[in-house]
Amino acid sequence: MPKWHRQLGVVCRTCRIERQKLVPLSVLQRRSYATPVSTSGGSKDDGREKVVILGSGWAGFVLSRRLDPKKYRVVVISPRSYFVFTPLLNDTCVGTLEFRNVLESVRKRNGKVEFIQAWADDISFADKTVTVEPSVLDPDVGHALTGPRRSYAQQSTHHGSGLPKGFIAKDVQLGGTGKQQAPTFPVRYDKLIIAVGTYSQTFNTKGVRENAYFLKDVKDAVAIRRRILELFELARLPIVPEETKRYLLHFAIVGGGPTGMEFAACLSDLIREDISRIHPELLQYIRISLYDVAPKVLPMFDAALADYAVKQYKRQNVEIKTSHHVEELRKGFPNDPEAAKNQDAQVPNRVYTLRTKEEGDVGIGMCVWSTGLMANPFVAKALAHVHRYPASSAHITHGDVTEPADRQWSIQRDPKSGSIFVDDHFRVNLIADAAEGETAENAPKAYMKDVFAVGDTTKLMSGALPATAQVANQQALWLAKALNQHSDPEPFTQTPGFTFRNLGVFTYVGSAKAVLQGPNTDREGMAKGLKGWIAFLLWRGAYLTMTLSWRNKFLVPMQWLAVKLFGRDISRF
Amino acid sequence: MPKWHRQLGVVCRTCRIERQKLVPLSVLQRRSYATPVSTSGGSKDDGREKVVILGSGWAGFVLSRRLDPKKYRVVVISPRSYFVFTPLLNDTCVGTLEFRNVLESVRKRNGKVEFIQAWADDISFADKTVTVEPSVLDPDVGHALTGPRRSYAQQSTHHGSGLPKGFIAKDVQLGGTGKQQAPTFPVRYDKLIIAVGTYSQTFNTKGVRENAYFLKDVKDAVAIRRRILELFELARLPIVPEETKRYLLHFAIVGGGPTGMEFAACLSDLIREDISRIHPELLQYIRISLYDVAPKVLPMFDAALADYAVKQYKRQNVEIKTSHHVEELRKGFPNDPEAAKNQDAQVPNRVYTLRTKEEGDVGIGMCVWSTGLMANPFVAKALAHVHRYPASSAHITHGDVTEPADRQWSIQRDPKSGSIFVDDHFRVNLIADAAEGETAENAPKAYMKDVFAVGDTTKLMSGALPATAQVANQQALWLAKALNQHSDPEPFTQTPGFTFRNLGVFTYVGSAKAVLQGPNTDREGMAKGLKGWIAFLLWRGAYLTMTLSWRNKFLVPMQWLAVKLFGRDISRF
Repeated sequence: MPKWHRQLGVVCRTCRIERQKLVPLSVLQRRSYATPVSTSGGSKDDGREKVVILGSGWAGFVLSRRLDPKKYRVVVISPRSYFVFTPLLNDTCVGTLEFRNVLESVRKRNGKVEFIQAWADDISFADKTVTVEPSVLDPDVGHALTGPRRSYAQQSTHHGSGLPKGFIAKDVQLGGTGKQQAPTFPVRYDKLIIAVGTYSQTFNTKGVRENAYFLKDVKDAVAIRRRILELFELARLPIVPEETKRYLLHFAIVGGGPTGMEFAACLSDLIREDISRIHPELLQYIRISLYDVAPKVLPMFDAALADYAVKQYKRQNVEIKTSHHVEELRKGFPNDPEAAKNQDAQVPNRVYTLRTKEEGDVGIGMCVWSTGLMANPFVAKALAHVHRYPASSAHITHGDVTEPADRQWSIQRDPKSGSIFVDDHFRVNLIADAAEGETAENAPKAYMKDVFAVGDTTKLMSGALPATAQVANQQALWLAKALNQHSDPEPFTQTPGFTFRNLGVFTYVGSAKAVLQGPNTDREGMAKGLKGWIAFLLWRGAYLTMTLSWRNKFLVPMQWLAVKLFGRDISRF
Repeated sequence: MPKWHRQLGVVCRTCRIERQKLVPLSVLQRRSYATPVSTSGGSKDDGREKVVILGSGWAGFVLSRRLDPKKYRVVVISPRSYFVFTPLLNDTCVGTLEFRNVLESVRKRNGKVEFIQAWADDISFADKTVTVEPSVLDPDVGHALTGPRRSYAQQSTHHGSGLPKGFIAKDVQLGGTGKQQAPTFPVRYDKLIIAVGTYSQTFNTKGVRENAYFLKDVKDAVAIRRRILELFELARLPIVPEETKRYLLHFAIVGGGPTGMEFAACLSDLIREDISRIHPELLQYIRISLYDVAPKVLPMFDAALADYAVKQYKRQNVEIKTSHHVEELRKGFPNDPEAAKNQDAQVPNRVYTLRTKEEGDVGIGMCVWSTGLMANPFVAKALAHVHRYPASSAHITHGDVTEPADRQWSIQRDPKSGSIFVDDHFRVNLIADAAEGETAENAPKAYMKDVFAVGDTTKLMSGALPATAQVANQQALWLAKALNQHSDPEPFTQTPGFTFRNLGVFTYVGSAKAVLQGPNTDREGMAKGLKGWIAFLLWRGAYLTMTLSWRNKFLVPMQWLAVKLFGRDISRF
């Protein structure tokens, strides 16, 4: 009698126990599987609407997991194949957590979420397609993005990357955003959700893009962890002079927001708890300097909490240098004019010089840069140009237009930040180019019924919200719930709009202490905030209950326990 | 009343609970610490003999942990700062374990083992010094070594590495093995232990060094894991033609020893257990081919066990191709003569072609190479030249020499393999260049009382042992014990010599099954061997009790459990 094997449901007539665990590859290969990711495909070809999500950050990833797979076929398009649990990224830089503890794969085992690893290049709202460019071999993926992408040609020469001849079927169009033509292909959508996030801000400070370590993605954390351990290993070499040791072990952090401050705290923990036992003779050379252009750090916290944090940092010998203006970050020693001139040379030069207006040139081992966000160039480039009127999507809300297809339409964006303006249903809005007798004020406006934008890259028309994980997460949860309830535009419009519920802000300040700013900002006193180890326990507990998978809910506490018992791992590879 | 803080023993007169956990960096910095690693220093400057160990593999690492720190000041010199638990390295290639689960830092928290991250360049037995070259910035460290090191100049140009001007104190000598002069410094020893291990063998097969993935060190495993996931991601792109998918997902493994076979088993596990659920539509394109030049795989196993293993592999669709001769591994598609000619070009070309005598050109996605070991060039280069007679170390055993300093002496080595000949006390032996009337047979011979060699790079005069972790481990344990008992040469000589105790050979064959070849090789039948899941449990249990630290004894089972419960992590970064 035939039996069903539990694993993969393969029928086997001559069933033996041994076979129950081992389904030969040949058997698996003979099975037929669901259609692969379709790039074309008509609307609702399997009875479900196809929702394409651009991005795999807090907004895009959360949406992909919350949309009802019975109702929607979810396709995520993102240059990277994982989601980063950013609040714990600092912990991985110093080895308190492992890198994979803060990553979640976008692909799901049951195939409920489809995925294409690619950059979105362009959107045609009228044709309901996104043009994408594969990013599997792009070496920049995984690092913080700080400006326009390097062209394909540049990448190919440097890293041997890109999709070569023979990889691409003959009928594929060449296009792409780089200087050299790259293979692109269109992906159809029924509903589109833009959640592409933002880039890291450098304010175009000289040399920062090339020489700084950023704190946004997992490869940044990998690079920082390697560099920290490398600096100590270098300083231990008996041939390295004293002065060079002082440069090597001077850690500069730029940016006094929660990310930079938490990194300083984690670095100080690493030094006090582990380095002090492994390299005690190097402690005398270590300095941690935190620079910020503003007169105060942690501006989002009440004065009492911020003061407490600053006091903690002082005790850990983190020098907080507010009102400092960083002018340049370059390779080489501070007193080496030759190196300063010759920044492109391949000459190895592993000490950096940080120049501030206040202090002049300072020799440092590394500079960690965390000064906030800038607009995503995709939004500026792909969404800024003029669009054909998407007749099937748009719904005119302002103005009287008889033939909307005769007008030219743009996405409504915030002129200052470049963010996409969305209503409280996260619908992307169109505005017609002002015709004769019209001003921008009274030009015709429309919203699109099937194009949404969430997360850092958007600005609510009702008022800007902070660009935080909490906001993106809440927006994604709201939109997923609303779309699961009403897939048709008409009842969806009736749903009450999104409102943000401030759950407070945490910042880790080192030595198992944190500060927590409560939801209310009326500054009546400490009752609205928490500090010390209670805040720290809350901080850890809150993260554990959040977006992490069961795997990481299990592995993160194990890793914390291992670090508590045995210290951090200091192998460098 | 003063209290001692538990942490780091800092005295604090105004002790508050808050301070007990937080020792400010400033306090730590004011403490004075033990002398840093001294490169010179007279013999027994702190009452202990200085034992310098070259290498951090199975022999060197185990020795460094077992030598009595009360008796010896242990200094390890190795290009990498960690020990790799090689039997579990395959598991990290597919995500069954994490990379750090199989690494142990050479540095110890209590400072009982000193460490210098450097290549050994040369030894002067007469002066009792080793000349070393720092390797902290060497990008090749962490990868399998397959031939002579690239010169400093080459490295600097390619990777921006090497120690630049300003890093090095002014009185440091320049030397080194590269074409360009690199900073080196001498390290004095009282006793020297050579445990530098071997390199990976490529038999100079064309293109293998440049294009193959090796299986020896942790960066190899990192590269393999990345590549496997990359290949599936590429094959999922809708623009990639069918034929290219077949090339991309053809995995070639060269070498039918335990390492290559275990890798095939791990890869097959990954595909059946995880890829089958994540990329079911790709299963039809997957092929795993294992090539070996010999007519049989797993030659160290009894026929019954080897047959069982081969049967298991067949069921997992691993094609075992014995008696196949690999002639070339190159970049590019099999039918692309242009790519074949232009191998140095930076053109991205991410399909490889493997040419065998039997099959001709075959398109593959990656080639994992594991065909055994070759002699370490350090042994050939640094130890082959003529040495001054080390008057204080040597003890003449053969021949009648009145003025040994007038003769020229070489290290006794196996002329065929180049290994260092050692006696059963692992002492390195000298032989005088044959004078008039002498042959190599009756030329004067001596052993050195304070220079030892252990592990893969040695050959016992009493007969060769297999170059395995088990042998190196037992040798290191014996030598550590003998040196802990008798540091003076005279009683040490009286210790009974080393004998190898064969504990059997394990190989994992996939699907939670293993084969275990028992200690006796009289081939009386299966009683001497074990197979199936019992062998698998023994295999895992045996590794857990071995050289792993408590941290990894804790984390490895947690990771195994997580994989069992949630599957392997497939994020690629």
